[in-house]
Amino acid sequence: MSRQSNRTTDSKKMNSELFTLTYGALVTQLCKDYENDEEVNKQLDKMGYNIGVRLIEDFLARSSIGRCQDFRETADVISKVAFKMYLGITPSVTNWSPAGDELSLILESNPLVDFVELPDNHSSLVYSNLLCGVLRGALEMVQMAVDVKFAQDTLRGDNVTEIRMKFIKRIEENLPAGDE
Amino acid sequence: MSRQSNRTTDSKKMNSELFTLTYGALVTQLCKDYENDEEVNKQLDKMGYNIGVRLIEDFLARSSIGRCQDFRETADVISKVAFKMYLGITPSVTNWSPAGDELSLILESNPLVDFVELPDNHSSLVYSNLLCGVLRGALEMVQMAVDVKFAQDTLRGDNVTEIRMKFIKRIEENLPAGDE
Repeated sequence: MSRQSNRTTDSKKMNSELFTLTYGALVTQLCKDYENDEEVNKQLDKMGYNIGVRLIEDFLARSSIGRCQDFRETADVISKVAFKMYLGITPSVTNWSPAGDELSLILESNPLVDFVELPDNHSSLVYSNLLCGVLRGALEMVQMAVDVKFAQDTLRGDNVTEIRMKFIKRIEENLPAGDE
Repeated sequence: MSRQSNRTTDSKKMNSELFTLTYGALVTQLCKDYENDEEVNKQLDKMGYNIGVRLIEDFLARSSIGRCQDFRETADVISKVAFKMYLGITPSVTNWSPAGDELSLILESNPLVDFVELPDNHSSLVYSNLLCGVLRGALEMVQMAVDVKFAQDTLRGDNVTEIRMKFIKRIEENLPAGDE
């Protein structure tokens, strides 16, 4: 399903509930398709990656944001612009590692898990894992390799939902031969 | 995954693109899981039905809308309140049957199909069929049995997207014994 080159940037603002329930249908389908929670987590991350790779273009067009100076600025843009735009929430950015290469996004509420309670037989399911993949895929498109995972999840009884993100490396752009 | 009884009615407003791409991932997954487009269409309708059955409660709480007087009022509420709330669009209500039991919702744009082109080998896929199920499920919860299907679809080369909805019957509520 290829990209339309002539789509406009006018956007629809919508309440999150239909998205929430549709996401639930996706997770439920994957739980039917795959044998264990670990496989489902992997698939959600992979799907998210593919989404992130495409969403970044929409994001850059819509936000008019240029290249970030450093990982701190990137984290701020993710929280205040990207999460706000696509999920309607603004996670706080915190728990920086001393080297400044690791941080946490704390989600006080997570629209993906409204209406949801995990059944007992899915104790290893990382229900919202799609989001990790989206971040990974989107950042890869702007030359940043990151590792993203859930560190805490209200669905699993934690007080907050925490996404832990670690900067791995800057990806070299392929320069045309002869350029330096 | 059971309903939370204490959820609030505060809602997140979000842009539609993450939803659009997530819906695309769901349809792609179903195309892998089922043998032919007809099966996928059926699954999308079924998933939509289950979503509609749950979404109606959120809708009634959020919109404070009471019982509609007739099918015309129902159609207006669906277009101007429900579609607006959950998809950010307001389809026009038109093409009424003489008996007033059938109508069309014309979607000038359909957020579900942004970014999408149907591959040639899925010519029978009703990509947005989830929406028909949502309408059918939600209306059943307010005692209206309806038949809903796509009559036109821009994805398949039509000029507009048209959802055709037919009123079948009012579903009798189960009254407590002795009541009339």
